[in-house]
Amino acid sequence: MTYINLDQTSSFTALKTLHAQGQTSLFTQHCVKKNRIENTTLQFSYAGYLLPEAALNLFQTLSEEQCLIERYETLLSGKNVNYSENRPVLHHKTRSTDRGVYGDVQKRFSDFASDVRDGAIKSSTGKPFKHIVHIGIGGSELGPKAAYFGLYCWAKSEHIPVIPVHFLGNVDPDESYLVLEGLDVSETLFIFISKSGTTQETIANQAMVLQRLRDAGIRDTRKHIVHVTAKGSPMDNEDNCLICFHIDDAIGGRYSTTSAVGGVTLSLAFGPQVFEALLSGAFAQDQDALNPIVTENMAMLSALLTIWERNICGYSSRALIPYAQALAYFPAHLQQLDCESNGKQVNAFGQVLPYHTSPVIFGEPGTKSQHSFFQKLHQGTDVIPIQFIGFLRSQSPDDLQVQQKLNENLVAQMVALSMGQTHDDPNKTFQGKRPHSLLLADRLTPVTLGAILSFYENKIMFEGFLWNINSFDQEGVQLGKTLAQSAANHSGEHWPVLSAYLDLFRA
Amino acid sequence: MTYINLDQTSSFTALKTLHAQGQTSLFTQHCVKKNRIENTTLQFSYAGYLLPEAALNLFQTLSEEQCLIERYETLLSGKNVNYSENRPVLHHKTRSTDRGVYGDVQKRFSDFASDVRDGAIKSSTGKPFKHIVHIGIGGSELGPKAAYFGLYCWAKSEHIPVIPVHFLGNVDPDESYLVLEGLDVSETLFIFISKSGTTQETIANQAMVLQRLRDAGIRDTRKHIVHVTAKGSPMDNEDNCLICFHIDDAIGGRYSTTSAVGGVTLSLAFGPQVFEALLSGAFAQDQDALNPIVTENMAMLSALLTIWERNICGYSSRALIPYAQALAYFPAHLQQLDCESNGKQVNAFGQVLPYHTSPVIFGEPGTKSQHSFFQKLHQGTDVIPIQFIGFLRSQSPDDLQVQQKLNENLVAQMVALSMGQTHDDPNKTFQGKRPHSLLLADRLTPVTLGAILSFYENKIMFEGFLWNINSFDQEGVQLGKTLAQSAANHSGEHWPVLSAYLDLFRA
Repeated sequence: MTYINLDQTSSFTALKTLHAQGQTSLFTQHCVKKNRIENTTLQFSYAGYLLPEAALNLFQTLSEEQCLIERYETLLSGKNVNYSENRPVLHHKTRSTDRGVYGDVQKRFSDFASDVRDGAIKSSTGKPFKHIVHIGIGGSELGPKAAYFGLYCWAKSEHIPVIPVHFLGNVDPDESYLVLEGLDVSETLFIFISKSGTTQETIANQAMVLQRLRDAGIRDTRKHIVHVTAKGSPMDNEDNCLICFHIDDAIGGRYSTTSAVGGVTLSLAFGPQVFEALLSGAFAQDQDALNPIVTENMAMLSALLTIWERNICGYSSRALIPYAQALAYFPAHLQQLDCESNGKQVNAFGQVLPYHTSPVIFGEPGTKSQHSFFQKLHQGTDVIPIQFIGFLRSQSPDDLQVQQKLNENLVAQMVALSMGQTHDDPNKTFQGKRPHSLLLADRLTPVTLGAILSFYENKIMFEGFLWNINSFDQEGVQLGKTLAQSAANHSGEHWPVLSAYLDLFRA
Repeated sequence: MTYINLDQTSSFTALKTLHAQGQTSLFTQHCVKKNRIENTTLQFSYAGYLLPEAALNLFQTLSEEQCLIERYETLLSGKNVNYSENRPVLHHKTRSTDRGVYGDVQKRFSDFASDVRDGAIKSSTGKPFKHIVHIGIGGSELGPKAAYFGLYCWAKSEHIPVIPVHFLGNVDPDESYLVLEGLDVSETLFIFISKSGTTQETIANQAMVLQRLRDAGIRDTRKHIVHVTAKGSPMDNEDNCLICFHIDDAIGGRYSTTSAVGGVTLSLAFGPQVFEALLSGAFAQDQDALNPIVTENMAMLSALLTIWERNICGYSSRALIPYAQALAYFPAHLQQLDCESNGKQVNAFGQVLPYHTSPVIFGEPGTKSQHSFFQKLHQGTDVIPIQFIGFLRSQSPDDLQVQQKLNENLVAQMVALSMGQTHDDPNKTFQGKRPHSLLLADRLTPVTLGAILSFYENKIMFEGFLWNINSFDQEGVQLGKTLAQSAANHSGEHWPVLSAYLDLFRA
């Protein structure tokens, strides 16, 4: 297996030549990949890229030149593919048929969640828990939050009892005020999530929560507290909490939704079997990603389209537009997953790359975004590719007509982006040929959501392989942490500059 | 007054030459503009741009060559500066000392809001209104929502009674489920906002709300409904609602937060005097924007920095990072304000522009974003300028220590972006010199929020003047609307393509 930069492959050069020729496919040629997952179907349409036929053949060659499947298999085998940190990348294992220690942890939090939901485990005041507050930041918040809101309406419409979850991440007094306002803490279970057990935001929020519990007259505060942390961390101590679940360094925060980080909260909220269904959807999609034929592997195909738009066409951003309000928090999760994994300028061997990596990712649900930034997507001076997510049916029942209206809008946008409009008035002209793809599922269920999560995780992994970067470290966040410490301690080489800036805050 | 393209000015050419010389200022030279607004201070620091001294002089010349103040004054005078739609642009008038008809409308909704808050106006069941649902999409939702959540904690900490507001925008059955779940509609006032009175999402949601009211046994449904619409629209009919307030075509949706669109809801939620304080902050900042000296006019200066980063340095996106959870919905508002105003490729005379306009705008609050996409801001292959917003004090009382932690993080990020870090390991190297600015206020109050709203509206207006575009139309959203109609009616020239795509949704 070779590890070479993207621009050293023959197919990349050939794709550039092909692009320069300016050919496009017919719009009516529907390029759709269908994938059966359990009793549902996930479809991926890339018709909106108007790709010449030859591009797909070159994608196939590129996938082979960059050893995409071989590298994925090496990752799955548990080798230390996170080179800079010299450790394996094991998030796929949390949903595989051989879960090992992750299965043991899942068993433990499933039992715990069932006991809480049944009322067998009660609060310090003897009442059943009526609310959950999930406290973590970054990867400990974004994925679980996207998944919780992604399934909330589904669970309600399936008459599954839901323990409502409130998310608290920031070290901002106004967020904690908003989240805790009106909550009866005596009926609330607080889940604190920090792999290191030292995340400043989470530690600060823990102190605040303990104070609130004491203010409410609760003596046995530990009965309201769950820890999710690494073995041996300062938080790994069941003297301070009701129960502690372990996570480890082989699963990055942004990939931790299918680990205990997402699992504890989702199992408490919806029941362990709902979380298990999410895992089964993710596993099925992980299997699909092993297919070496690019037109039959939607995660790999989507990654290759990223290379096309980013490195061949030169577009610098991408919009993610779910036509589903339930996925309102999904773009924020994707922002982290993508930017923290692939927002890098060196390859896996520490050499500076001569090409661009991860684009800017942003998005809001449709149709809301139509009334917001779509002006720019249609008529702005930059071409901004779009990935749409759509569903045949809503989560709530009985509103087929409204769902149809939503999807008519989605289709109208895709056609407008492709076809454009000629007009005498240049202000009413739409150039068209603006690339987009569509991920389409029957309905947003736990299985579908798991599949969509896996689709994006694997797509981003393949992009990392294509760019020859390590998608699993995050050195770019370290300097800010160090300097925040310097600012707090009035120390370090940058203290004079920090101090000058801090003066502004002493007005 | 001349209307020329940006690249036809002599100062633009000179700025390009200056940039090519590669000089930067000293980082320790703090470039800060202070502005007293009533009894508070707004500061704007642009030290993070590391600009050579000469750039500021050229900014001054450019502001004169593009007649920024003269064009702003022409707009304020009520002339038809929205050329393509041949009408004036009057949102500044809603907060001026001479509000005209907008003052009459404000008086009317202030009285109404006071009566609802006092309990003089009651629901159909004789109960006071305990909840408000604000129903609109795009400009009818984003600004009011950002402002409501921007002031919520402030109002609570000031012991101002708040009627909680819930926002519903999308034509998505799952959003209406989520918003209406648990609300007692017999105690709820529904505000429907649509200038045309025909917005499909708002009309669909109105039908749904009427059904809910009837299902709850309410006969006199109009007693729960307020309309905000243009005179003569299908919604301008007090037979169908408790009261109707007028808006007009001279105020674009994205600029309507200080009109009845934001005013009705904010006055109901917090009281008319809170909305009036917001207006006074916006007006004070509107006055600041009349200052012809660029270093003393922060909206104009910020617009000129956009030209520097976008058209001189060639950066294609910008992050907006408020270190304030209360501004969590502000980036979405700014996305619309910026993209819909300036995401255009023709000038005010319909000629295609030879340079880039509005960049991609995205953002999430700090510190959350530090744990999400900051990896890319520090080490990605694209330079992404950042505008930070900070506050000396939180809205909630008594948490100075936590607020200090938040601001230490903000300062640490600014210093890391400017200074970078050299390291033997390229994976731990930060190039630094990544441009950023800071808008800093004492505390997020109604006055400050009004000033911040105005700052962005005027900044975007000046950017439009600099690019020589009409920031006040939005032709780019029309084609999608037309095609959605075609999809619904199975008609029009694009029906065959629409139909092919719709087949995907009939699986």
